[in-house]
Amino acid sequence: MVLAANPAGRRDESADLTQSLTISIDAMGGDHGPSVVVPACAKALADLPHVRLLLHGDEAAIRAEMERASGLDGRVEIRHAERVIAMDEKPAQALRRGKGTSMWAAVEAVREGEADCAVSAGNTGALWAISRLILRMIGDVERPALVASMPHASGITTFLDVGANVDCDARLLVEFAVMGEAYHRAAHGVARPTVGLLNVGSEEMKGHEEVREANRILREGGVDLDYRGFVEGDDITKGCVDVIVTDGFTGNVALKAMEGAARFMYGELRAALTNGPFATLGFLLARSSLLRFREKISPPPAAPILGLNGLVLKCHGSADERDFAKALRAAAEVAQSGFASEIERNMRRLPAALAPAAAASADGAA
Amino acid sequence: MVLAANPAGRRDESADLTQSLTISIDAMGGDHGPSVVVPACAKALADLPHVRLLLHGDEAAIRAEMERASGLDGRVEIRHAERVIAMDEKPAQALRRGKGTSMWAAVEAVREGEADCAVSAGNTGALWAISRLILRMIGDVERPALVASMPHASGITTFLDVGANVDCDARLLVEFAVMGEAYHRAAHGVARPTVGLLNVGSEEMKGHEEVREANRILREGGVDLDYRGFVEGDDITKGCVDVIVTDGFTGNVALKAMEGAARFMYGELRAALTNGPFATLGFLLARSSLLRFREKISPPPAAPILGLNGLVLKCHGSADERDFAKALRAAAEVAQSGFASEIERNMRRLPAALAPAAAASADGAA
Repeated sequence: MVLAANPAGRRDESADLTQSLTISIDAMGGDHGPSVVVPACAKALADLPHVRLLLHGDEAAIRAEMERASGLDGRVEIRHAERVIAMDEKPAQALRRGKGTSMWAAVEAVREGEADCAVSAGNTGALWAISRLILRMIGDVERPALVASMPHASGITTFLDVGANVDCDARLLVEFAVMGEAYHRAAHGVARPTVGLLNVGSEEMKGHEEVREANRILREGGVDLDYRGFVEGDDITKGCVDVIVTDGFTGNVALKAMEGAARFMYGELRAALTNGPFATLGFLLARSSLLRFREKISPPPAAPILGLNGLVLKCHGSADERDFAKALRAAAEVAQSGFASEIERNMRRLPAALAPAAAASADGAA
Repeated sequence: MVLAANPAGRRDESADLTQSLTISIDAMGGDHGPSVVVPACAKALADLPHVRLLLHGDEAAIRAEMERASGLDGRVEIRHAERVIAMDEKPAQALRRGKGTSMWAAVEAVREGEADCAVSAGNTGALWAISRLILRMIGDVERPALVASMPHASGITTFLDVGANVDCDARLLVEFAVMGEAYHRAAHGVARPTVGLLNVGSEEMKGHEEVREANRILREGGVDLDYRGFVEGDDITKGCVDVIVTDGFTGNVALKAMEGAARFMYGELRAALTNGPFATLGFLLARSSLLRFREKISPPPAAPILGLNGLVLKCHGSADERDFAKALRAAAEVAQSGFASEIERNMRRLPAALAPAAAASADGAA
């Protein structure tokens, strides 16, 4: 554990990637709570020998699940939390009464340097607001953003914001561009990621005022980025740029629309491949290829919140055991990528003219 | 031909569905122009014995393509147009200099009662603005909307607006709900379609101001609709409601994101199924099922513009021969659905309080 010397969860990029790592988990989050989280932990730890876990939540419920799982002894510490934040609780309410909940405690462990990152499948708005309050923003960051990693034929597109900020002005979109670019470099080792702004067409006059103004700043405002202009919805899975920036409303809808389309297609494919003896035989012969295919087209089930002094990942609420285990593996990887210091360094590239707005509004939560 | 008696392209719903029908086509529209449009016409006419076509555009170029195609003689009339609207032309510019272009003439033929509908794969913004100017809006409609038909496991979701109106206030979203519901009833024979409003969560407090206000009006404003509240991005392909309403920015991004995801998945699937001898053999055995699968998951390549005195369909710009032929078949079907009179009847259901705004701004184009 090197956490005491690294309270903000920022690791030296030259650090040994197999050094010990602690993940703090909201064991009560998501639609299923400990009954999914605990077996997922057992699954993930089997592949992550250097990781130990802090499990926050109802001790009795967690213990009961641990008795059914294996490989957790000596690698998990339970931290009892009396209360839970409901999936439909408003962020403002979660901030008022959140102290002492499993989510709050999971994030607090990151601030206290007891864990390298926190993972929750709970209420997104509450997790965002609580993380923002407890960990505070890096430097001049105005609002943290949720980032999704979308697969394409030859790699990953970093796509943000996917739901944390419903209303975004031009300044915020530029901030997301800087954070997303820094994150992509740290997480995927690309020296100079390319950046695009999501719009309804590629011509300069397209889109609403915010997106046109952000385009102008990124082109002329002296932000040192490899900015490629407007991109469209189908570019998210095309890989024509590394980072795609949008507001949290559009990003959330697009992300879920793509997830839904993938689920629909996979369901129809399964139906097509069990329809009659030839198709079924074909399916059996192609089975291992199809499983690899499914793995490749599935986006990681965890989205980091960028811009905080510490790492918090949101796992989707309906995650099953396999999804939550994948989220823990993603958390371990991102925690060791040094992305936070990369973001801090890069936020200094925001033009001076844009900075004051950030400083002024960085105090209030949610 | 019953067009002279039916100048707005509105047919009696009890009309004989095999009666003659004229489609007016912008032969120069799209990325490929006549080289795709003309062979697509030949393909579509083979299945549509009751249809004849007006082809607007460069007569020499159209004739050259017609010599290579078969089955067009006596069923196609060429209307020479000197000029073409460029794919990147601004709508305002297209309005100023559009007269005499192939797109303008294609829409004009609908107003003149010479055709039942117009189809163009050209510039979306220009087509929307020109159609609005030439055909004018039905009754109290404030702004026409582009509607996409998204496949789901057991039917079609009507999804609008997918790109015509980038900025939408609450009143406009309510108008889209009324038009979309009427269109779904006419096009798919569902007596009382269910309607949802696209948002980032299903709770009442979620989303931006416009979507929350539209939700309030649809719940409490006396609009006679089977309104089911907020839905999310993955509901578009779930089929939980028949009609999903959103602004043109979000709708365009979501539609293209889903199209991109489907294309990516299909590409990966093909790669997986040709990867090694077992997979390839499996692919060959399952081939016909996979082709049916592909057909089922592909959304129709043409989107009607709702709210006009006449039918105009936008086909996507990169359409190939197969896509444009499908667009013509879709046009023939929609033209006979009686949807326009259904919309006109239903717009009267908009609460009186909402109507004046519409009347006031219905005059200006684009």
